[in-house]
Amino acid sequence: MKYYLAVDLGASKTRIAVCSKDTIVEKTVEITPKQGDEYTIARFIWETVRKRFPTYIENIEAVGVASIGPLDIKKGIAVNPTNLPFKEIKLLEPLTTYFGTRVLVANDAVAAAWGEKNYGLGKPFKNIVYLTLSTGVGAGVIVDNHLLIGKEGNAHEVGHIIIDFNSELECGCGGRGHWEAFAGGINIPRVAKLLASKHKISSELFEFLLKHPEATAKDVFEYCRRGDRLGMLVVDLYVKASRAGIASIINTYDPELLVLGGGVFLNNQDILFEKIVSGLENDVVTSMPVIKPTAFGDDVGLYGALALAANPPRELLEVQGV
Amino acid sequence: MKYYLAVDLGASKTRIAVCSKDTIVEKTVEITPKQGDEYTIARFIWETVRKRFPTYIENIEAVGVASIGPLDIKKGIAVNPTNLPFKEIKLLEPLTTYFGTRVLVANDAVAAAWGEKNYGLGKPFKNIVYLTLSTGVGAGVIVDNHLLIGKEGNAHEVGHIIIDFNSELECGCGGRGHWEAFAGGINIPRVAKLLASKHKISSELFEFLLKHPEATAKDVFEYCRRGDRLGMLVVDLYVKASRAGIASIINTYDPELLVLGGGVFLNNQDILFEKIVSGLENDVVTSMPVIKPTAFGDDVGLYGALALAANPPRELLEVQGV
Repeated sequence: MKYYLAVDLGASKTRIAVCSKDTIVEKTVEITPKQGDEYTIARFIWETVRKRFPTYIENIEAVGVASIGPLDIKKGIAVNPTNLPFKEIKLLEPLTTYFGTRVLVANDAVAAAWGEKNYGLGKPFKNIVYLTLSTGVGAGVIVDNHLLIGKEGNAHEVGHIIIDFNSELECGCGGRGHWEAFAGGINIPRVAKLLASKHKISSELFEFLLKHPEATAKDVFEYCRRGDRLGMLVVDLYVKASRAGIASIINTYDPELLVLGGGVFLNNQDILFEKIVSGLENDVVTSMPVIKPTAFGDDVGLYGALALAANPPRELLEVQGV
Repeated sequence: MKYYLAVDLGASKTRIAVCSKDTIVEKTVEITPKQGDEYTIARFIWETVRKRFPTYIENIEAVGVASIGPLDIKKGIAVNPTNLPFKEIKLLEPLTTYFGTRVLVANDAVAAAWGEKNYGLGKPFKNIVYLTLSTGVGAGVIVDNHLLIGKEGNAHEVGHIIIDFNSELECGCGGRGHWEAFAGGINIPRVAKLLASKHKISSELFEFLLKHPEATAKDVFEYCRRGDRLGMLVVDLYVKASRAGIASIINTYDPELLVLGGGVFLNNQDILFEKIVSGLENDVVTSMPVIKPTAFGDDVGLYGALALAANPPRELLEVQGV
């Protein structure tokens, strides 16, 4: 039997799975190495597979990698990845050498869109956006059955749509007023502090943030759930920003299906989903797409990587294919 | 010899040209009919060609139409077109009957993108955005050599990117804070009045606008050129809004080339172009595209229509092809 190797390379965890052409057969979740050189991650993937899945190695037909970005799509390299201390992570070339098979590397949200199309909610549709609301905000986009790549593989950087051109709020990329500046998980504690000083709010969340510089989006959402006024204001702003971004996405790509994923969204969909989608049609000029959370949960990247391996998108083959 | 018919249907003027496969051979510019039924425009196109280009009619190989929108792309019908008092303008079906040849209909900006790719600045590139800054704001987009259509043919409605999610400024579509609400030519006089009352500015432009409810964007730009303070404020806001929109376009489609056209831009590129593009890279996460005004001027829609006829895009053939 033939198998495919799916790798979901994240800043904190790396998921690796041996798959049939349809589904995950065996998987492991590992801590992503934080030290080494540009080959460390590829070697770590190879060693993990040798250790955990030795019996499958000979029968691996192709490898798909859903990776943190930004990517140099032509070379299959992650370049200055946010939250990982490597200047470069070489993937395409060393993995091709290790496994001796075809390897395709895509941005994790792009892979996820391809996974939804091949295995998930996107099966019946030609026009699909997969949106990740996570540490950052990103998307993968399929228009007319075509997976968008763009000149550098960035035809989906929706987190950098400017949703408030008057805003001074700085994004990780250095721009101002970007969706991700408001809604990227990594920026949420900072947004909370800014709101607190702007509105002169005293709140338990504010005290907590002052004492814990390492606080995360998770903490902010927890305080919101407890009814903390600042927490609620932050989540309210998150919802408004994300509604603006999502309306813009629908207007620019005209999808039939919008799949929502990403840790910040998936962990808080009970308080986010309804608020984000209700009334969205007022700002949309085309007909509304179906909007649903991904059914894959944490495995969405793995299904994306599997789809890259088992049903390689023509557009990516043209760029990375041998 | 074989000829192609190119039609650029605008709200005020309709341009019709007989073309070789490379260029315009003969053209006429007519006033678009404002009265009649859903077949009036198609009949008018047919009659105009019969009258003006009778010797070519037998040799017309295919017809391309660059039309005002919004379109029902599958049926080739303009539906509730802005600024024309028709509920529907049927194009695909009656023109196919009249001319007895293949007809393709696309949104004017989408056609223009295809025209730039086939005949204009876009020839060497696979990733192109044509942006029209005119009565409305719209685009045509080619990613990885693929002309984006979307589920309803609206995968390019960039005028409805929300650039200020706090804004109450209403767009023609009913949404708030859209790029077109700030920068659509039709909205500019209204923006001027709002700015005047917000900033309590007395200006000659403001007096003029109060006396002339029929004033247009052209008037506002003229007062700006004369140094009118309100006029300059409006143009400044226009520039800021358009920079935000253009940065968002570059981040979402990752083009190699961005071609600028449309009446408001082309008539004022001396005061707009530099201001709009300078510093744009601060808000862009991918590498910058080449940005240039269209070299076709008013004929950009005709070259787009010619490209539809002479080199029909696969994506559109799949939707409208017989």
